[in-house]
This record gives sequence, structure tokens and C-alpha cells, in this order.
Amino acid sequence: MVKPSIPKGTRDFTPVEMMRRNYIFDTIRSVFHRHACLPIETPAMENLSTLMGKYGEEGDRLLFKILNSGDFTKGVDFQNDEQSVNHLASQLCEKGLRYDLTVPFARFVVQHQGELTFPFKRYQMQPVWRADRPQKGRYREFYQCDVDIIGSNSLLNEVELVEITGEVFRAFGIDIVMKINNRKILTGIAEIFCNADQVTDLCVALDKLDKIGREAVCAEMLERGIAQTSIDGLSPLFELGGLSNHEVLDKLATMLSASETGMKGVEELRTVLDYVAKLQIPIQLEVDVTLARGLNYYTGAIFEIKAKDVAMGSISGGGRYDNLTGIFGLKNMSGVGISYGAERIYDVLNELNLFPPHIMTPITAMFVNFGGDDELYALQGLKRLRDANIPSEIYPDPVKMGKQMNYANAKGIPYVIMAGENERSQGVYTLKNMQTGEQQALQIDDIIGIWMKNPK
Amino acid sequence: MVKPSIPKGTRDFTPVEMMRRNYIFDTIRSVFHRHACLPIETPAMENLSTLMGKYGEEGDRLLFKILNSGDFTKGVDFQNDEQSVNHLASQLCEKGLRYDLTVPFARFVVQHQGELTFPFKRYQMQPVWRADRPQKGRYREFYQCDVDIIGSNSLLNEVELVEITGEVFRAFGIDIVMKINNRKILTGIAEIFCNADQVTDLCVALDKLDKIGREAVCAEMLERGIAQTSIDGLSPLFELGGLSNHEVLDKLATMLSASETGMKGVEELRTVLDYVAKLQIPIQLEVDVTLARGLNYYTGAIFEIKAKDVAMGSISGGGRYDNLTGIFGLKNMSGVGISYGAERIYDVLNELNLFPPHIMTPITAMFVNFGGDDELYALQGLKRLRDANIPSEIYPDPVKMGKQMNYANAKGIPYVIMAGENERSQGVYTLKNMQTGEQQALQIDDIIGIWMKNPK
Repeated sequence: MVKPSIPKGTRDFTPVEMMRRNYIFDTIRSVFHRHACLPIETPAMENLSTLMGKYGEEGDRLLFKILNSGDFTKGVDFQNDEQSVNHLASQLCEKGLRYDLTVPFARFVVQHQGELTFPFKRYQMQPVWRADRPQKGRYREFYQCDVDIIGSNSLLNEVELVEITGEVFRAFGIDIVMKINNRKILTGIAEIFCNADQVTDLCVALDKLDKIGREAVCAEMLERGIAQTSIDGLSPLFELGGLSNHEVLDKLATMLSASETGMKGVEELRTVLDYVAKLQIPIQLEVDVTLARGLNYYTGAIFEIKAKDVAMGSISGGGRYDNLTGIFGLKNMSGVGISYGAERIYDVLNELNLFPPHIMTPITAMFVNFGGDDELYALQGLKRLRDANIPSEIYPDPVKMGKQMNYANAKGIPYVIMAGENERSQGVYTLKNMQTGEQQALQIDDIIGIWMKNPK
Repeated sequence: MVKPSIPKGTRDFTPVEMMRRNYIFDTIRSVFHRHACLPIETPAMENLSTLMGKYGEEGDRLLFKILNSGDFTKGVDFQNDEQSVNHLASQLCEKGLRYDLTVPFARFVVQHQGELTFPFKRYQMQPVWRADRPQKGRYREFYQCDVDIIGSNSLLNEVELVEITGEVFRAFGIDIVMKINNRKILTGIAEIFCNADQVTDLCVALDKLDKIGREAVCAEMLERGIAQTSIDGLSPLFELGGLSNHEVLDKLATMLSASETGMKGVEELRTVLDYVAKLQIPIQLEVDVTLARGLNYYTGAIFEIKAKDVAMGSISGGGRYDNLTGIFGLKNMSGVGISYGAERIYDVLNELNLFPPHIMTPITAMFVNFGGDDELYALQGLKRLRDANIPSEIYPDPVKMGKQMNYANAKGIPYVIMAGENERSQGVYTLKNMQTGEQQALQIDDIIGIWMKNPK
């Protein structure tokens, strides 16, 4: 008999972990609802033609592919030693597991454009799969929580995502910095200091600033063909720390005055900051001109969120894209979105001990089972509690009291209710507080009253 | 440009469908919580060694298999024309998508036995995948909602599942019949009327009674080697309709008196019925001795639930098993569970028009965007509404009023709020009821008050 196991990089979630995870999802969802965002779901499997080529060569390699059903060998030329592994895979597999929620969302919008009302504010919380090498904090199956507003290029949407982000993390009690940049500023920088067509190289290098530091980033720029003189010219951009957002924007406006696109980026950022100030949105928003994010599809705002009290990379990020749906044949559909990383948020809440204690006591009371008529009496009390929507249970067998109490303790059930012949004859139940040990004989209505007055 | 599509048998869910689906999941979940059942989740991918051989030959064929990552051709002998397609698949794939929630649950219990407290009451609501031929109401990706109580053979657990089932369907407003049988009775019947080792043949044939009728069932029994005299002897079992549950049990007790196992089954059923009567659980529970369900692992109670007002197969089912975890090396772990079919429940609610209207209006109000200072004034009102947890939004662009009203109409938003210079100077907002057309100029606090007093 082989010891049962699960594929590496995947996880089971026990009730304790589920309660914490559901707390995360429920909290984020309630903020989304308040902001009139609506849920969608897409299938776990997508056609590989939808997924391939959307995440770069690396991404293609990390897609989980699904073997065709039935006789998958039919028509496949296994004898051809010349063909690549990829080519063989494409003959064996038509479907793959989704790699993120963004590409399926773009596909969804194009496919259902006739049924949707634009601007479309959607959220989506589902697992994604990547055949990455598993390591601490990185899994092969993990959840993403994405919110996007698509079909409008109004900057109010950026402002709403800033507001949503603030509400989400305030609800968690996590202190964050939200960094903001604009892809048009990066384009302007490339135009002024390098060459207009070097913006991607610039972004890819800058994206690594956090991980590898300024020197290595400059080395990478050089390697990517950006001239040393250009790199020297970029120096002031690395030295904006300590300035206020408006000081940074003023400097940028001077530096980029010759770039129409760059100035547009500065103006957009200024507009977003002005709204945030006027609406008094309580969030620490920081302009960071070195924030690039590798994703090539961003065209406007770029966001990244970091927790202040833990040493960890970004816990969420996003930005504006103008043509994500273009790959599926629908042009001019600008959108902006943020993806909240559920696993990262879990780790932060865990490290900072921020999970609220009440989520860990999903069961309020257990009735001890004394068997026979006592059992029936207990079952009647139990029914009353459940009718009052109080999560509760009875130990299913009239075994020894100690075993039943151990069960309640192990599950962290805060109250145990006992009723034997004595209680039965008086029509009461003995309520025991498992933390204090205090016991009281009470009518069932009074027991219900205790929790109704004081939920959780 | 290829028109975007998804794999056949899979579905996208738009917001309207999601709201209905979430209503189903939330309703079931709240009943589970009240009964102190706790959630778990398992990965979408399981090792094929966990899944293969658990669902019969047909099941193995319907598993979605995942191509190994990296160079999946390494060490695979493609030149061997003798090998079967299955053998080749087993070299190409180590993982597969889960086929149901039962086998992963058994694997979970064995793997985590040290962390769990038994009896363990768990529920699990996740998608499963089957490479079945798609047809009306049958999908390749669909959700199951399973609840199980494992680690106790107390019949109180059967009673609790009856109670849970009653509460779930009462919450939906669906009138049901819950049929109940006991595998031990079927064993007794085989012992008395056929041969003890023919119980599986008996069950497989009986399981089709609903679909193919009594005559064809008897033909199948004959085909499966059950003697004609045995089949004739079974006649009375098909003619128990119209009798009360206790009359049926009395007849069975007479017929099966020579079978110890059969009598045990009768006694178990009687105990469950007695509890249900004493606790006055409001449910139509019907003993049906022809209820077999194909699943070979059932050892005690067998359940099946049908909706009374629609012509449709069973919408849920389950039973007691004594050795599900045995396949993973853990013996003596008796459990009982029910699986609620989310897709079937959806179809019933839809057909009977039972979705509550309020779930379809997730957004309470939209502010019209008049731009400039009016926009800022609207945003301030919007913030107040959201602070009061009222789901609301503003149209993100100051476009023509007609376009904004169309948006609100298309989304079924019941209230629109307008505020121009007039309102602004008086510190009020004009609230328009989209159904009646009625308009009122009100302070924002009064608008909030309307919904706080009368949620939904």
C-alpha cells in the first residue's frame, strides 16, 4: 500500500486553513460588492490556442497541458524524430489549465461582448496553475483575486482601484504602501534618454530593481543594448526618494517636457493623485518612477502594493491596458485592473498574527451525548439552537464523558451543554464555558439569548 | 483571427449566472455551518495512482490526464507498437483532474488523520472533471457539494443528513421526496432469493429501474446470471408501493427473517425512521427497497433525493460506507455522506422560477456623472453610501444622460441618483426609483436611511 500523497506544489486545506482562507476571500469580496463589481467564472481548462503565446516562452513552458481524451495517438506521428517536444505536445493536447485570470477574462469579454454591459466591472477569484518549480510561498496551484473595469478609459477607474485597495487592506489591518507609476512616463523616459523602441528593455530591467539592486539593473540595461550614456542620463530617476509625489511629478514634467507621451503620463498621474486627495481616500500612495512590472500589455497606470511590516515582495499589482482583448479580435477596449495575491496575503496575516480570533470558532456549542432519553432531550435542545442559526452539534455516540470533552477541546468549541435526568426533570440544560470552566443550569431560551445578544 | 471559444462541455458564468450559483452554494453552506460541518479543499490535480481503478473501467477512461511537465518524452518508448494507448498514457502522465470529491476526501482523511478530530464532519464544494460526452445538463466541468461524517457508525449521523437535506431543500423552496434504503437489506434479499454473491448484480440491475423499467431490469438480472426462479421470487419487492414505511419494514422483516444481515438492515432503517419521527423532522422520507445506486462501496443506508414538481432524475444522493479509506491503507473508518448536485438544483430552481428576485439586484444605486464639480459632489455622496455598505457606483464618464440611464437599466439597478448645480447648492441628491419613475430630492442621510430600514 503506497502512502497517499498529492502532486508536488499542490496543497490540501484543512478546516483551520479553510477558515482563514475564506476570511480572506470573504473580506475582499465584500469590498468588491460594495463597489458594484460583479463576479464571473471561467473554466479551469482553456483551449491551448487561447493560452499559448500569451505569457512568453517561459509561460508556454509552464502551462499544464491536458492529454486529449479517447485515442490520443490517432494521427500522431511518433516516429518523426525531427519534431520538437513542443510540436509533439501540440499534437497530443488541445487543452490546458489556465495560467492566470487575465487572459481568460479577455477571452470572456470578447466571447460574451453581446451579453455584457460596458463599462464592465468584474471580479474573479479562482485557482490558476503553473508548472513552476515549487518553493517556499510558490505553488503550482494557487488562487488569484482579480478586479477589472473594462470598456472605459476614465481615470476615475484608477481612483476606484486605489480606493478598493485601501479598503481591502484596512479591513485586514495590514499597513501598505501603494506604489503607482505610468507606462507613458516610462515611454517618455525611453524617448528622451534612450531610444523610443527601448522601452521594453528599460521596463524588463527596471522591474528587477527590488530583487537585484540598481547596479545590476544598469548592467542589465547595458546588456540589453541601452547605451552607457543613456544609462548615465537615467541617474536622477533613481534619486527621487524622499521627495513628495508632487515634487516628483514636477521634476518629471521638466525632464520629459519634450515627450508628448511622457507628459501625458505625468498628467494622468497628477489627475489620479488629485482625486485621491480631494476624496480624502486614506491610503499611502507613492509615485515610483522605477516601478515597471514586466507585463508588456500595460499602457497607462501601473500599481504595486507592499506590506510595510513584513519583508516580502509585492502582495498585489495591476495596471491599465488598452488592447488586451485585441489578441481575440476586439479592439479599443481599454481596461484597468488589480490582482490580489491570496497566498501572499495569507502569509502576511499569519506572520503579523492578524487573523481575527472569532473566525477560528465556527462551532458555538457541543451537546454531550448521555444516550437513551437524555440523548433525545439533548437532540431537542440542539434543534432549538440550530433553528436560531447557532452552529452546534451533538457527539454522535454515548461514549465516556472524557472522550466527548476531548473532542470539544480538540475542536476549540467554546461551550459544552450537558443534560442528564436531573436537568431533564427541571427542563433545563447545564451550559459549561470551556475556557473558564463556569457552569450554569439554564432554560434553552436563555442559552440562545446569550449568543443572540452577543454574537461571536 | 479565430473566434474565441472554450473546450466543449465547459462553461463561462456571467454575473447573472454567478449570482444564482452563489445563492445555491451560500444556501447549502449556511445549512452545513449550522450543523457544525467544516470546509476542506483538495487540489484539482491528484496523482493518477490515487484516481485510477477507483471508478471502474469507464471511470478510468473518463479521467482527464495531465501531460508531464518538461521533456515528457524522456524514457518513453514510442516505437513499441504493442503497447496499449492506456499504457502509453501512463508513461506520459502522472497526474489527473479529480473525478469526484469522494476519493480525494478518502485520500485526505488517510493523509491527514493525525491532524483531524474524529468524528470528522466535513463539507467540500469544488468542481470535478469528467471526459463524458457533453449533453443537455451534463458537463465536463461541474460542481459537487459533498457533506460527510466520518469516523463514527452512529445512526444519528444518518438522521443528521436527513435533517440537513430537509433544511437545504426547504431553504430553496423545492418540494422533495427523500428515498432511503439499506445495502444490508439488498444483501439479505440476495441471500434469501438469489445467491449471497449476487448482491452486486442485483444492485447494478435495480439501479436502472427508474430509467428502463421493471421488465428490462428483470431481463438484465437474467442476463447477469440470476436464475428466473429467483427473479420471480423478487416480485413482491416491486409491489410495495402505496404501503407506509412501517408496513414495508414489517413485510421485509418477514421476508428476510432468515438473513441476519438483512434483519440488521431492517433494524437500522427502523431506528433512523424512529428518530426522524421523534424529532419531528419535516421531510417526506420514503423507504424504497428497489433503491440500489450503482456505487459498490455503500454498506448501510442509501439515500436518493428527487424533486416532486419536475421530471428529472435524482438531484442528490449518498449513503454509508465502511471502508472507503481502506484503499489508502486506513481500515475501520465508517462514514456516511450526501452529495448535492449544484447543476441539477440550478435547473430545478430555474424551471420552477424559485430564484429569489433580490439576489438579482446586487447593485442598489448608480450616480449619474455630470462632470466637473458635480462629479466631485456625486463622488462624495457615493462614498457615504459605500461607507454604509450599500453597493453602489458612479458612471465613470460624464457622457450623455441617456447613455448613463441605459447602463443603469441594462444592469437592473433599481435607483439612480442625480445631482447637478441645483442639488449641490441645496446639499441634496435627487433619488429616482427606476421602476416607478418617482423622483425625490433628499439629504444623503435620508437616502441611506431608506435602505438601512428596508434592506433588499
